[in-house]
Amino acid sequence: MRMIETDPTRRLAARSARMQSSAIREILKLTQQPDIISLAGGLPAPELFPLEAMQQASNTAFGKYGPVALQYAPTEGVVPLRELIASTLPFPTRSDQILVTSGSQQALHLVAKILLDPGDLVVVESPTYLGALQAFDAYEPEYLVVGSDDQGMIPESLEHVLSTAPVRPKFIYIIPSFQNPSGTSLPEARREEIVAIAERHDVLLVEDDPYGQLAFDGRPKAPLRTHSQSHVLYLGSFSKVFAPGLRIGYVVAPDELLTYLVRAKQATDLQTGTLDQYLAAETFEVIDMASHLARLRQVYGERCKALVTAIRTHLPEGTRWTEPTGGMFVWVSLPGGLSSEECLPEALARGVAFVPGASFCVDGSGLSSMRLNFSNVPPGKLDEGVRRLADAIAAQSKKALVAR
Amino acid sequence: MRMIETDPTRRLAARSARMQSSAIREILKLTQQPDIISLAGGLPAPELFPLEAMQQASNTAFGKYGPVALQYAPTEGVVPLRELIASTLPFPTRSDQILVTSGSQQALHLVAKILLDPGDLVVVESPTYLGALQAFDAYEPEYLVVGSDDQGMIPESLEHVLSTAPVRPKFIYIIPSFQNPSGTSLPEARREEIVAIAERHDVLLVEDDPYGQLAFDGRPKAPLRTHSQSHVLYLGSFSKVFAPGLRIGYVVAPDELLTYLVRAKQATDLQTGTLDQYLAAETFEVIDMASHLARLRQVYGERCKALVTAIRTHLPEGTRWTEPTGGMFVWVSLPGGLSSEECLPEALARGVAFVPGASFCVDGSGLSSMRLNFSNVPPGKLDEGVRRLADAIAAQSKKALVAR
Repeated sequence: MRMIETDPTRRLAARSARMQSSAIREILKLTQQPDIISLAGGLPAPELFPLEAMQQASNTAFGKYGPVALQYAPTEGVVPLRELIASTLPFPTRSDQILVTSGSQQALHLVAKILLDPGDLVVVESPTYLGALQAFDAYEPEYLVVGSDDQGMIPESLEHVLSTAPVRPKFIYIIPSFQNPSGTSLPEARREEIVAIAERHDVLLVEDDPYGQLAFDGRPKAPLRTHSQSHVLYLGSFSKVFAPGLRIGYVVAPDELLTYLVRAKQATDLQTGTLDQYLAAETFEVIDMASHLARLRQVYGERCKALVTAIRTHLPEGTRWTEPTGGMFVWVSLPGGLSSEECLPEALARGVAFVPGASFCVDGSGLSSMRLNFSNVPPGKLDEGVRRLADAIAAQSKKALVAR
Repeated sequence: MRMIETDPTRRLAARSARMQSSAIREILKLTQQPDIISLAGGLPAPELFPLEAMQQASNTAFGKYGPVALQYAPTEGVVPLRELIASTLPFPTRSDQILVTSGSQQALHLVAKILLDPGDLVVVESPTYLGALQAFDAYEPEYLVVGSDDQGMIPESLEHVLSTAPVRPKFIYIIPSFQNPSGTSLPEARREEIVAIAERHDVLLVEDDPYGQLAFDGRPKAPLRTHSQSHVLYLGSFSKVFAPGLRIGYVVAPDELLTYLVRAKQATDLQTGTLDQYLAAETFEVIDMASHLARLRQVYGERCKALVTAIRTHLPEGTRWTEPTGGMFVWVSLPGGLSSEECLPEALARGVAFVPGASFCVDGSGLSSMRLNFSNVPPGKLDEGVRRLADAIAAQSKKALVAR
């Protein structure tokens, strides 16, 4: 009889070593107390969910489709939803170019699964979306970091990174509009330049666009996909426009890649929920989309303004921050090299939470930065939250001085 | 300027080469015509979905949880559903040992993702569930085949396979009750023996149990998990008991593995649909589970009997078949080495479809076998379907004779 070793993790695959729990989800567990003002989350405002429209759509789906709404459905997604998505996208798309996914997180996972061998190169910004890094990490790539400023990814930096890469990167990951976590957005000219650079180097762009519709001025910029069918995979989501609990996202991809994305999804979870898909499609029929979006933009715009005002008012001199024109996040960098991670316990003790910047960075940067969310915090609490944050920063600054 | 190559599949990861589309899903596309009797599918009977109960549960979920039913939720699953699953399982389980998954297909994917490095060994039966092979294939294992007979996996064969394996296999994949595709079920004694063998060799058992509740006699056998908490991961599903379009499954795993399954799921799709989870939990409150299960068992039992009778009546002498006591499938083996795949065009021409056996086998076996589904075909059509199948087999037999 063989000895039974006691640690079951000895059985794990090599890729599991890179599977860390999301820093955000861990911090969120600490912020369940009602007296904490959480600027840490990435949640849309639940009071803006089209709850009644969605309940009505659910009943319509049951009535209209009956058992079909609860049966297995094609991996690609149900036809009415794929047609609706195709018809509402701001670039020409056939419904058979669309794969419905279980949130756009799953699209990130599937893209990584079909494209990445261990050691492959992926080009990312620093900071970038943590959940994308988690999705990619499982497939063990190496990252090349491209520079960004307050207008998003810098085309010259991308050109430099692609020109000097030791092998051709598998893809460039980019959130062109209201980036998570920085809140920055690419101007039109940069969009065209970046697509041209990617095409010239024959590198795919993975365009993640959950926030594009949340332009406060109501004028979303054209997605990168508008400029290239051959080199852009476009990832969309209903999580920020309808509600995230539905888990409906989608990917638009070149045909040959779509085939593999569909196969990978089939092996992953067969299909996205049938009822959820019909519910999403029927919600389109019920809702006045223009006024729903207008309401989201107005409320988020007000909250963003309140947060930026509070930052300007309360945070210490030398603090830098982005001023987003859409989306859900502001990126704040503290003066004097103060560590945001070391500020976090002080902040939690004073009843405010945020996500330290290093979590979003693959290159060791972001140590003095933090992501602040405004979409899920009422304006009054935003001011109070930033006051508490200022106190925490002051306390930590003193400690840091003493430590020197 | 570099040359742009035109085949985008050149970018694919090595694992993508093993991503094939499911033979079943491809055949299903051929069987959409209403005049085809499809014995090929793996669908539960939609007329038995608890449609009204689920619509009522959906409205309750909207009313009781409001926006919470549509917001992000913990990766592990919502508390009420995890508690319900824990309380209804036939072995002691804490709710924090459960991860809710997007169907049990996703649990298969997650298990493979956290455990399998390329070249790792996985022990499977031949035939076994095609979807499991797809989930595993993406992580590039090698398979060891364990013998099975009309009572399922053979313990002596398992002992031999584990004793002679060149390295310790990562896990044994097993469907103990009403196996897909064979329809066979392990007797109690074999269950205990198999668990003892796995423990002695310190190899995990991945127990896939979507059909256990569908025992025609209403007396499901105890899952393997009953006999070992340390070495059994138990995968359950609501797809065959409620409805598959919900995409609610779950995995019960040793704590240390559950942590990694949760992280892998977080990277894969963040979480299973929030509304779907509350809907499933509320359906439990609304439905009379005992009489719902009794109805499923009665109808499926009748259909199974009708299919077996039709096989006995119409198929040629020398045909062998299983006689399931639950589940959804019968496994048929043709006499004289006739190829089931070569019979398929003849069958489709005569208006009947099935899945050729080779699709379920990793060892080149199953060439003369086929999987027949009875759950989604009315009894009258089962007889007519098998008549057509008999004609197709006769036609193909003649062709095969001439070819000799």
